[in-house]
Amino acid sequence: MTGYALPIKRLIEELSKFPGIGEKTATRLALHILHASDENAAMLAESILDVKRKIHLCPVCFHLTESDKCDVCSDPSRDGQSICVVEEPDTLIAIEESGSFRGTYHVLHGALAPLDGIGPDHLKLKELLDRIVANHIKEIIIATNPNVQGEATALLIAKMLKGMDVKISRIACGVPMGGDLKYTDRMTLAKSLEYRRIV
Amino acid sequence: MTGYALPIKRLIEELSKFPGIGEKTATRLALHILHASDENAAMLAESILDVKRKIHLCPVCFHLTESDKCDVCSDPSRDGQSICVVEEPDTLIAIEESGSFRGTYHVLHGALAPLDGIGPDHLKLKELLDRIVANHIKEIIIATNPNVQGEATALLIAKMLKGMDVKISRIACGVPMGGDLKYTDRMTLAKSLEYRRIV
Repeated sequence: MTGYALPIKRLIEELSKFPGIGEKTATRLALHILHASDENAAMLAESILDVKRKIHLCPVCFHLTESDKCDVCSDPSRDGQSICVVEEPDTLIAIEESGSFRGTYHVLHGALAPLDGIGPDHLKLKELLDRIVANHIKEIIIATNPNVQGEATALLIAKMLKGMDVKISRIACGVPMGGDLKYTDRMTLAKSLEYRRIV
Repeated sequence: MTGYALPIKRLIEELSKFPGIGEKTATRLALHILHASDENAAMLAESILDVKRKIHLCPVCFHLTESDKCDVCSDPSRDGQSICVVEEPDTLIAIEESGSFRGTYHVLHGALAPLDGIGPDHLKLKELLDRIVANHIKEIIIATNPNVQGEATALLIAKMLKGMDVKISRIACGVPMGGDLKYTDRMTLAKSLEYRRIV
């Protein structure tokens, strides 16, 4: 990085802040910006500012949205009594893309991670509870990630909702479709055996 | 990408234009920007615009610079009669970081690639010739990349300067320092044998 003019160095520094982008990749990106047309660079800068200006959280489900409510929450054809709880907006998008869920969502914006200082208060859990109580929600599908943090969060939600008149389920764990059993990790194989279904 | 609000989609699209950045990585970067503070996003956008506004090519060697002339060209302690010819500014930086060259540079901004429509006129070759004639340059070190395009460019430069009173050399090809011969590709091994030095 030494040797580049100051504005380039500063851009490399800014780009290095991205997750998974080191100094070498940042340098490559910075030089790409330098070679791009003025309009392209301006468009990139503008869309960065735009996203910060225009995007906010949906007040109902906390998905990212440009409008008052997000597309899912403002769609009257969706089943408002079924809520799929996810950690992040990208999981919501992935489920939407699978086209297999017609209810609504609730984005927690994280998962329990006590070692990183993320406790229940950092997640949109109270909001979930309020929503369930206020709207007579019938079903909660917990779609947090199948890892330590996600499982802990799922357990906490299940515990929190215990005694309430709501059906709670957790997405299925097992071998991924199209996968090859011999390449599947042991943990997943063990889970797929444990959770075997009668056919 | 479907499912995200329009400003996010637009940012993902802009970020996907980077080399080596696909839609998935672009999405990850866009969400990172969304989670970053407003100041950080503004700083990133500003430095993108800054780099386009402030950076231009050094009129002597065509390195990227913020000032009139680049740091190397404006340094009186450098040997102005020795020119190291490189394809891109990043090669110049790499050589500078090695600290093994005290002359000046000439950045071609590319290499011969007839299949991509890049001929001699697209490179700063005429400018190199003018510079050699006007400044009584004594030595040219050709440090284009050791691949087909770089070698073709090196050959062209050598041919172009034939008959002129200037020492022309090409950087050495061989096994990299610290490497292990058994993991070195055959082409490099062949070159390292062909160019063996008497010790």
